[in-house]
Amino acid sequence: MNQYVRKAENGSPVDHYERVAGNGKKQKIAFTKMHGCANDYVYINCFDQDIENHAELAVWLSDRHTGIGGDGVIFICPSEIADAKMRMFNLDGSEGMMCGNGVRCVAKFVYDSGIARKDVLHIETLSGIKICRVTVENGEVAAVTVDMGKAELAPEKIPVLFDGESVVSREIEVLGEPYAVTCVSMGNPHCVIFGGDPDFIDLEKIGPYFEHFEKFPERINTEFIQVLDDHTLKMRVWERGSGETMACGTGACASAVAACLNGFCQKGEDIRVRLRGGELVIRYTDERVQMTGNADTVFTGVVEI
Amino acid sequence: MNQYVRKAENGSPVDHYERVAGNGKKQKIAFTKMHGCANDYVYINCFDQDIENHAELAVWLSDRHTGIGGDGVIFICPSEIADAKMRMFNLDGSEGMMCGNGVRCVAKFVYDSGIARKDVLHIETLSGIKICRVTVENGEVAAVTVDMGKAELAPEKIPVLFDGESVVSREIEVLGEPYAVTCVSMGNPHCVIFGGDPDFIDLEKIGPYFEHFEKFPERINTEFIQVLDDHTLKMRVWERGSGETMACGTGACASAVAACLNGFCQKGEDIRVRLRGGELVIRYTDERVQMTGNADTVFTGVVEI
Repeated sequence: MNQYVRKAENGSPVDHYERVAGNGKKQKIAFTKMHGCANDYVYINCFDQDIENHAELAVWLSDRHTGIGGDGVIFICPSEIADAKMRMFNLDGSEGMMCGNGVRCVAKFVYDSGIARKDVLHIETLSGIKICRVTVENGEVAAVTVDMGKAELAPEKIPVLFDGESVVSREIEVLGEPYAVTCVSMGNPHCVIFGGDPDFIDLEKIGPYFEHFEKFPERINTEFIQVLDDHTLKMRVWERGSGETMACGTGACASAVAACLNGFCQKGEDIRVRLRGGELVIRYTDERVQMTGNADTVFTGVVEI
Repeated sequence: MNQYVRKAENGSPVDHYERVAGNGKKQKIAFTKMHGCANDYVYINCFDQDIENHAELAVWLSDRHTGIGGDGVIFICPSEIADAKMRMFNLDGSEGMMCGNGVRCVAKFVYDSGIARKDVLHIETLSGIKICRVTVENGEVAAVTVDMGKAELAPEKIPVLFDGESVVSREIEVLGEPYAVTCVSMGNPHCVIFGGDPDFIDLEKIGPYFEHFEKFPERINTEFIQVLDDHTLKMRVWERGSGETMACGTGACASAVAACLNGFCQKGEDIRVRLRGGELVIRYTDERVQMTGNADTVFTGVVEI
C-alpha cells in the first residue's frame, strides 16, 4: 500500500502530508486496537506474523488521520524468559522502555488470544520482566494488576537535588508561588503536589516550569493531586517530554505513595486514583507498588502494508 | 461493549473519560477506515447491516483514543433515487450535509465493495445527488472526480455584504492590515486571499477575525493562497466552526475559481491545489466546478457495539 508521511518543507513552520509510493510488495497484517485509561496503542501479534521495519511501521500506523491511529505501536513477540515480550514504539519511531497502561493491554492480549492462558503472566520489557495478575470475566480479561516494583525515595536516586533521606512536603518556588513537593521514583522521577481541584490549574503554563526546575537534573513528571477522601485521589499529570497526558501509570503510583508519606492515605490499602483517562487502583507497601486498571479491546482489523 | 464518553464535570474547564456500561446486547459491526486528503472517516455499510442510534455511535466511534477515531462516521445506505445514500455524522453527533473528501471515499466504497460497479456513480446527500466519476486501477478506485456544481459569485447569494455583481480583489482591513478578498460560494461561503507562502501566516490568530468579520453575515471559510505557477496553488484554510483543517474540498474549488477571476489561472484548465492533507485538481467552467482527488482505504475492521 502507498503510505502517507507528514513532514514540513524546508524552513516551513507547518507540516504537510505527502504520499510515498509503496515498494510493490503487499502484506496483510492483523492488529488489535486497545487502550488502558485512554492510553491507546495498536497491538500486533508477532507470534504468527513476520514484521520488519518496526520503527517505520510505527510512525505510519500511529498517524491518526492516514494510519490506524494511536499513541504508538506495541509488538507482542516470543520471549525466551517470559510468556511474551513487549516491544513498544512511539509515534516518532523511537523505542520505549515500558508503559504501565500498555503492559496491562499486553497481558489481556496474551491471555485472550490464547498465547498463554494463565492467571499470572510474565511480560518481558526493556525495563525487565513485569508480573501481571489478570482478572477474568466471561472468559476474557477485564482488569490487570501489575507489580510496578519498589518506590524509590532517596533524593540522589530519583534524582532530585534535595538533602535528607526523602523529599516529603518540601517547599519550592515556581513562577513566584510556593509549592510543597513530595518526590518519588517509580523507575522515572516524579514530583507530587497536593492542593485543590487540579482541573482549575493552568497546566500548560506551569507544567514546563516544573519539568525544567533547577532541582530536577533529569527533568521530572509532575502530578497535581486533590485528596477527595482517604482512599481517593484526583490527578492531572504533566509528563516530561510529552506535556499533559490522559493517564500516567507510574504517576498514579507515585501519587499514592506520596499520599501515604503525607498521611492522607494508608499503606497497604487500596487507593483509587482518578485520572482524566480513567481510574487506577494503587496499593503501596514497603516492598512494592501494585497497580490495577482496565485493559479494553476496542476493535480488531486488517491493514495492508 | 462498554463505551467511554468524554465529558467535563460541572463547571470544570477540562474533560474526563467516563466508562458507560453497555445495554448488554452485543452486535458486531464491520467498518472501513478511509481518507481523502487526510480528511478521515469511519465508513459503515448499511446495505447489509442494521444500525440504530447513528448519532450516539458517531460520537463514540469518532473518539481517537477510546473509539476507532476519525473526523466522524459516514453511513452508506440504500437510496431510492441514487446508487447509495451518504449519511454523515460529525464527532459531536450532528448530521452533516456533504463533504467533498467524504463523497469521494463513498464512491470508492460503493464501487470496490460491488454495491454498484459503474464508472459514474450517483450518491445521494443532504445537499442533493452528487455525480462521481471513478478512475480504476487494478480493479479498485484510485481517484474520483466529483461534480461540485456551479460557483455562485453574487454577493447577496454567498452571502457577503459587498455591492456589485461579484467580489473580486476588494480591500478589507483585518487587525489593522489590508487584505484583497475574492468571495465565492460553493454551497457554503468562501473568502479567498492571494499572497506569499501561507505556511508563514499565523492562522490561529487571524483566522477567527476573518470568520467573524462584519461583512460576512453567516461567517465564512477563509483560504490563504500562494500562486506557485499558472496551474498550481498552495492553500491553507480556516473553516468556520472548525478552525484550521488539513483539507477543504469546497475551499479548493473556491480558490481555483478565485484564481481564474483574478487572472492567475485559466478557466477550463486543470488547476492543482496543494493542501496540507494532499492535493486536489480543480477544473472551473461557467457551468460547473469539477474536483478530482484521491480516496484511500487504510484498513478494515470489526467493532463490537
